[in-house]
Amino acid sequence: MRKVDPVKHEQKRRDILDAAFRCFIKDGFHGASTTDICAAAKISPGHLYHYFSSKEAIVEAMVDMGLESAAREFGKISAAPDFIEALIDYLEHGSLRHRTAQVLSLDALAEAARNPQFAGIVEKHASVSRNLLVDFIGTAQRQGQIDPDLDPAATANILLAVIDGARAMPIRTPTLDIEQSLAHLRTLLSRFLKPPREMSAHIRRVTRRTNAPLNASRKK
Amino acid sequence: MRKVDPVKHEQKRRDILDAAFRCFIKDGFHGASTTDICAAAKISPGHLYHYFSSKEAIVEAMVDMGLESAAREFGKISAAPDFIEALIDYLEHGSLRHRTAQVLSLDALAEAARNPQFAGIVEKHASVSRNLLVDFIGTAQRQGQIDPDLDPAATANILLAVIDGARAMPIRTPTLDIEQSLAHLRTLLSRFLKPPREMSAHIRRVTRRTNAPLNASRKK
Repeated sequence: MRKVDPVKHEQKRRDILDAAFRCFIKDGFHGASTTDICAAAKISPGHLYHYFSSKEAIVEAMVDMGLESAAREFGKISAAPDFIEALIDYLEHGSLRHRTAQVLSLDALAEAARNPQFAGIVEKHASVSRNLLVDFIGTAQRQGQIDPDLDPAATANILLAVIDGARAMPIRTPTLDIEQSLAHLRTLLSRFLKPPREMSAHIRRVTRRTNAPLNASRKK
Repeated sequence: MRKVDPVKHEQKRRDILDAAFRCFIKDGFHGASTTDICAAAKISPGHLYHYFSSKEAIVEAMVDMGLESAAREFGKISAAPDFIEALIDYLEHGSLRHRTAQVLSLDALAEAARNPQFAGIVEKHASVSRNLLVDFIGTAQRQGQIDPDLDPAATANILLAVIDGARAMPIRTPTLDIEQSLAHLRTLLSRFLKPPREMSAHIRRVTRRTNAPLNASRKK
């Protein structure tokens, strides 16, 4: 029996994941077959099964890598001094300007809606992200930064929906004004999340401060 | 040459669209081929081309039908006495509880992100929906129902993103509490859209009125 070199094994595993990633971007999770992935990774199907038992196993490994990166990003948001700015930063770089995240997330959601095995993977991913957000929302509520009347889990689901919806924005509107969209997303999230009493003071400040960018395109 | 019966031609066209619809739900816009659609519609490929020149032509015809229905729905929202409740109603029945809309919209967005011909169709659809929303937002702003500092087009894009994001919610969270999600979407949209001065009075009313449902799951 051939001895497995763990470093080489791990490298090959990553090469396969990279190849699968390119195939999923091009043809979608449903459209890309293991044959396509083997061709892109330059290995035989028999060889593939030393590393992954099925296409779903490849997807799951990719999702786990994605979760580690999401955990880092959400960690940054909860540690930021201004969490709304940190969320806006995530919406800019993780949704509005991230074409790969747009293709893969929307495709994964569509595939999850029709394939129960895939649904389990997407659900697991969402559940980890939601738990990170729930912890952070609870802390921010105790610190008086987020309206304590909002339910943390329901609010986390709304934030995930805003992140997903923002990924659709540049696809629905290729000429999207990203800066103006970010200004409106900031208004949406500030008004939603801030405690109502603080909000009336905040609205006066924000209205004064952001009048120009919010109205920019209308005043042209 | 055989005479074409316009009624029969139209009926056959609709049968093909129904068959294509089932194929797209099952395998996605990318995965379903014209061969699959012909098999589902029980016609030969040669026969199909009397009705549609390509898969893209089928998708475009489906989108046009979808646009008529979207125009009716958005017409209802703008004519409603309480437009936020009308939007919430649309979010409930057009996003949260509409599995077909979830599969097809998310799949169409993913496909548009990778296929320029498809992108044109999705963009056209979004542009018609956005124009309907922009007209209606402008009217509501003049009537003092929507914050006049919000840009109508940017706000319409945000509303479309919330509709898209809400479609992802039951996929990411199969155990989603729909009623609680609707209560939070109502808070999100009211706080975002209402004029700030009216909002401080509205927040006090809403906080008193909706405390129970917003907090329900936490208080258990």
